[in-house]
Amino acid sequence: MRILVLGGDGYLGWPTAMDLAAKGHDVLAVDNYLRRRICLETASAPLFDTPVLEKRADLFSALSGKKIETRIGDLRDPGFTRSLFETFMPEAVIHYAEQPSAPYSMGGETQARLTLLNNIEVTFNIIWAVKEIVPDCHIVKLGTMGEYGTPNIDIEEGFLEIQHKGRKDRFLYPRQASSLYHTTKIMDTDLLWFHVRMHGIRVTDLMQGPVYGLSTKEADMDARLLPFFNYDDMFGTVVNRFLVQAAADIPLTVYGKGGQTRGYLNLKDTLQCVSLAVDTPPAPGELRILNQFTETFSVNRLAEMVRIAGKELDLGVKINHLDNPRIESEEHYYNPAHSGLLELGLAPHLLTTEVLAGMLERILPYVDRIDPDIVAPRVRW
Amino acid sequence: MRILVLGGDGYLGWPTAMDLAAKGHDVLAVDNYLRRRICLETASAPLFDTPVLEKRADLFSALSGKKIETRIGDLRDPGFTRSLFETFMPEAVIHYAEQPSAPYSMGGETQARLTLLNNIEVTFNIIWAVKEIVPDCHIVKLGTMGEYGTPNIDIEEGFLEIQHKGRKDRFLYPRQASSLYHTTKIMDTDLLWFHVRMHGIRVTDLMQGPVYGLSTKEADMDARLLPFFNYDDMFGTVVNRFLVQAAADIPLTVYGKGGQTRGYLNLKDTLQCVSLAVDTPPAPGELRILNQFTETFSVNRLAEMVRIAGKELDLGVKINHLDNPRIESEEHYYNPAHSGLLELGLAPHLLTTEVLAGMLERILPYVDRIDPDIVAPRVRW
Repeated sequence: MRILVLGGDGYLGWPTAMDLAAKGHDVLAVDNYLRRRICLETASAPLFDTPVLEKRADLFSALSGKKIETRIGDLRDPGFTRSLFETFMPEAVIHYAEQPSAPYSMGGETQARLTLLNNIEVTFNIIWAVKEIVPDCHIVKLGTMGEYGTPNIDIEEGFLEIQHKGRKDRFLYPRQASSLYHTTKIMDTDLLWFHVRMHGIRVTDLMQGPVYGLSTKEADMDARLLPFFNYDDMFGTVVNRFLVQAAADIPLTVYGKGGQTRGYLNLKDTLQCVSLAVDTPPAPGELRILNQFTETFSVNRLAEMVRIAGKELDLGVKINHLDNPRIESEEHYYNPAHSGLLELGLAPHLLTTEVLAGMLERILPYVDRIDPDIVAPRVRW
Repeated sequence: MRILVLGGDGYLGWPTAMDLAAKGHDVLAVDNYLRRRICLETASAPLFDTPVLEKRADLFSALSGKKIETRIGDLRDPGFTRSLFETFMPEAVIHYAEQPSAPYSMGGETQARLTLLNNIEVTFNIIWAVKEIVPDCHIVKLGTMGEYGTPNIDIEEGFLEIQHKGRKDRFLYPRQASSLYHTTKIMDTDLLWFHVRMHGIRVTDLMQGPVYGLSTKEADMDARLLPFFNYDDMFGTVVNRFLVQAAADIPLTVYGKGGQTRGYLNLKDTLQCVSLAVDTPPAPGELRILNQFTETFSVNRLAEMVRIAGKELDLGVKINHLDNPRIESEEHYYNPAHSGLLELGLAPHLLTTEVLAGMLERILPYVDRIDPDIVAPRVRW
């Protein structure tokens, strides 16, 4: 299958591109290096040296015999987007091409505007390129569990049947996010849902929880193929951050009470989920929404598991409860459904102290590269 | 009170500016003439000559002794928006500054992009100008009943308490619109709701139904003060369109079965509602949502009332059921709440055949100006 991977340089985009290429698909990975530029701007260097996309694609090709095409360009430009679709004629497009940091999006007006316009315009351009050029193409959009927020009722998969005053109807599950980044994802959903109904495009929206991990079958071939691995307060996800903090003997930065509960998944399962979605496209005019995580943890539980994993490696991991820099519930109900991807065949890699210890062993050789100045939260809201 | 009227040249913005100035407020009306430019582009000339904003403000001042300041500029420019707020320091801002035509927004990619970016960026810039410069300022946002669509359950005022599996929570009422324009309003609501919760701004969102009318106390002083009155398929609202069609002996253009039901209000009641909202600002950190209409009608019922009104003036009004150019339900449940504005003191001007006949009498002298080429729907979706 011809698959466009948009945001193909990122933490998830690059391993996805390798995974799909390894499975025999024709992959074109596209990026504008927005994340790299923002990481430069905010001194949020990744833990591992990460060669540019073209170099990594060459290396991957040399090691695997499989090819990943690459293009550098800005999907906010409708002409660039259209030309991509016209020349590659994708059958599926994986849409990771968004500014993904919640704290960055809350850094001020400039950061908020960049996040809002980048994310909305790119989604809009993709929708129109599909509609006009490859109307049968399957858009696999990365949404986020953060769109739902932390409601006091069970979270269903995308939609909710509502009973009200003796009548009922089915709606998009109500969404209420706690950062501007997450709000732009809600707005993406509005745009996709509208165009699915009006223009009959086919869309899978993967409502993903925070991802952890660095190892994938392809990334393990060479350290230069590792994903863009951030451990800073803005671009690092919480498990990855805690592990780097543990390796560097920095007390784990739990925000507030630490009762914040989310659905997590291993990077390997992101690849599985995206691949399963690609293999089972929804019908034209269908928006299929799947909650993409494998298990829920509170931040306190994650910190405790990292402490135990550290102990196995003789690290004395300390835990620090910081003033919460975010406006969010620190203790709340959380019961999200996530059966859809399991029914498609997802075989989860669950989080254990062994998995955490294995990641720690990969991180420890790089401990001298860890910059303690980018660990504590730099943005408050 | 110092009140900014954004989109102050429009069908509703201009009469609102006059009404608020007549009530003794200091009014600054701002527009970028986007609607005039799109009306030129689409040959959608208004029925009455409409002098530019500055000329109308001068005339209004000469006739009433009250002043309306004017500025021409683009609120998509954050610098322009900021300078407006810094120099005028508004206590309330009435936000009409959006591309308001559903059919125009569905005309193609260019029209859709303009609508999306104009509406989202302007709302974003207003939010940030308020947050940074006049955090206590009350944003009165014109939303639309079209955000709710036509659900099979009662429509409440903005929010809905949802019971699900034995638990409950309160959410924004689920929204699902049937044009891109209406979808941008949903996205506006997402942005406003997020910033209300995060930054404590105060917002009233007026979910308005289709407005009809041309007469207001101030507009009646001189024909040159009449609102920008469109009767074409793109910018005309349905009652206004039907009356112009009746005057020109064009069969009324009912789309499809005509069972489409909406909540309508007289232009005079728009002015009342906005003024009532301004007089009763919500608390900081509150999003107050009010459904702004006074009564519901099906399109068939409106056509029939226009036919009867025409008969009183010896016009033989015919009714034509066209193929529906839109994707929408032509027969549906519709029971929207609208008690909030009545509780604030709204005294409705209801729609009667006398009201319609009165409008017809104002329209008939201009019958030679009616262009029959812009009456039938020019955009299909």
